[in-house]
Amino acid sequence: MLELRLVQGSLLKKVLEAIKELVTDANFDCSGTGFSLQAMDSSHVALVALLLRSEGFEHYRCDRNLSMGMNLGNMAKMLRCAGNDDIITIKADDGSDTVTFMFESPNQDKIADFEMKLMDIDSEHLGIPDSEYQAIVRMPSSEFSSICKDLSSIGDTVIISVTKEGVKFSTAGDIGTANIVCRQNNTVDKPEQSTIIEMQEPVSLTFALRYMNSFTKASHQPLF
Amino acid sequence: MLELRLVQGSLLKKVLEAIKELVTDANFDCSGTGFSLQAMDSSHVALVALLLRSEGFEHYRCDRNLSMGMNLGNMAKMLRCAGNDDIITIKADDGSDTVTFMFESPNQDKIADFEMKLMDIDSEHLGIPDSEYQAIVRMPSSEFSSICKDLSSIGDTVIISVTKEGVKFSTAGDIGTANIVCRQNNTVDKPEQSTIIEMQEPVSLTFALRYMNSFTKASHQPLF
Amino acid sequence: MLELRLVQGSLLKKVLEAIKELVTDANFDCSGTGFSLQAMDSSHVALVALLLRSEGFEHYRCDRNLSMGMNLGNMAKMLRCAGNDDIITIKADDGSDTVTFMFESPNQDKIADFEMKLMDIDSEHLGIPDSEYQAIVRMPSSEFSSICKDLSSIGDTVIISVTKEGVKFSTAGDIGTANIVCRQNNTVDKPEQSTIIEMQEPVSLTFALRYMNSFTKASHQPLF
Repeated sequence: MLELRLVQGSLLKKVLEAIKELVTDANFDCSGTGFSLQAMDSSHVALVALLLRSEGFEHYRCDRNLSMGMNLGNMAKMLRCAGNDDIITIKADDGSDTVTFMFESPNQDKIADFEMKLMDIDSEHLGIPDSEYQAIVRMPSSEFSSICKDLSSIGDTVIISVTKEGVKFSTAGDIGTANIVCRQNNTVDKPEQSTIIEMQEPVSLTFALRYMNSFTKASHQPLF
Repeated sequence: MLELRLVQGSLLKKVLEAIKELVTDANFDCSGTGFSLQAMDSSHVALVALLLRSEGFEHYRCDRNLSMGMNLGNMAKMLRCAGNDDIITIKADDGSDTVTFMFESPNQDKIADFEMKLMDIDSEHLGIPDSEYQAIVRMPSSEFSSICKDLSSIGDTVIISVTKEGVKFSTAGDIGTANIVCRQNNTVDKPEQSTIIEMQEPVSLTFALRYMNSFTKASHQPLF
Repeated sequence: MLELRLVQGSLLKKVLEAIKELVTDANFDCSGTGFSLQAMDSSHVALVALLLRSEGFEHYRCDRNLSMGMNLGNMAKMLRCAGNDDIITIKADDGSDTVTFMFESPNQDKIADFEMKLMDIDSEHLGIPDSEYQAIVRMPSSEFSSICKDLSSIGDTVIISVTKEGVKFSTAGDIGTANIVCRQNNTVDKPEQSTIIEMQEPVSLTFALRYMNSFTKASHQPLF
């Protein structure tokens, strides 16, 4: 039996909106560690590896490891019916071919059960090697996503170049070129607005903006 | 001569947005009692019966009974030009083939006259028998409309079941099933947020969600 | 060399959104006086004459007169990447076939350079004769634009009639007619909400609403 109660249900809603753009069907794996998903997009360019750790749930019961194949589009349809303040509980019985999402309104006056059919999905688990990164840039997710969105109106790919001074995002297309530079900026009193660069040596890599724009969907925060 | 002055003009705007989804053309009937409309949708499933009582108007003059055939789409186009705070006056002369909607801005600086052609529409007035209901559920319209909207992403019909404990909305579709339960909840200090159930015996009825979603258009309130 | 620094960058963004609806390609002319554009729409009905005076720029350097042919759609794409609080600097070298738009965020942490290819555009400069107007109506731009938008749901053209009492906007179409009257209204304490009419004699002229709606794009102010 499986019963996972997530108080901050909007988190699952938001993550799913991002993943479903890349992956159509995928297995969610549930174990003592947490609720996880690993999948590649259809063109085998992007790897989605999601782990919601068991400690993040208010209540986490998983009697034995379970793999549940879900259509992410349908799952997103159901999660969209959860209010942003709702508590979401994921429930499944061993051997059942359905999963139930329960949404409780904060005052407990409204309780919704959405039951979804599971699918059999072949998937091989990929070992993701631990990487040592030569450069790590930490910046506000809202700024990163607005840069990717802006550049995709000019070109298809972005070159991200990191130096000690800052990180540069460049693109080129039919109508011209664009470079956006974000300088290192350690705002002590507002760490969530800082841009912090840790690097061993300068790095310059090229990415498809289409994927960047899918990835940033999972991060978007409302602006206050 | 007809001259009906409605201070809360946004009310007429909102009601018409809902009705025009169901009915294309209809007769508005004006008498000493009020300004009313009775019409069925094209598939003869839904009956719209609207009555704006004469007492609700700031000024109500209706010299003799008048039936005015209007295209509701065109009427909605005109009413959309009224500001939400505007005072709306409906004017018609006996025997005229036009109706005039006058919109006055609250400070009287802007006065708009929209004159619309009337149509000849055959319609028979249906007697609506008084019904005794076995169950009456009173709940916030915003909650009812969001439930109907959510369920229509899963299925086409909703089963509404009423018991003493609460009201249950259920649907089923290709991707799974959904049940939403709202418990009786008499919030004394916020009666407009209460869910109150009066019933003689349990009731369970099935409705098309498409119609529910049209009906709730007339109710939507901004969320505060 | 050309370097024009405009602190209120949103102004250029907004103006361009309006112009690009009317004109596809146009020459921007830069001289000691300012940064200007003159162009007619493809059907030669509307004339766009834009002048951003040199005094309005924080820094204005224009070594010699320069005419730069731009595709306004592409230019608008780039300007849309500037934040509303960004400082915009327009840069070009003599003889270069590109122009650079630089966007600086208010705190200088993010600096973007967008380089756009220039085009060769034949254009003749039109002398615009000074006109004496028989009537001048000054009214809030938001009100004017909402009137034009409302009337375009009824008809294609608007007759604007000015008398001492007020200004009347009239249209007619298949579904009926509409008249909107704005009275002269000199609100002393809120001059930006006044409607002021200066006239020698009554005037009545007809215009295409399609153009009015394009023109008002340049004016729209957020409502407070």
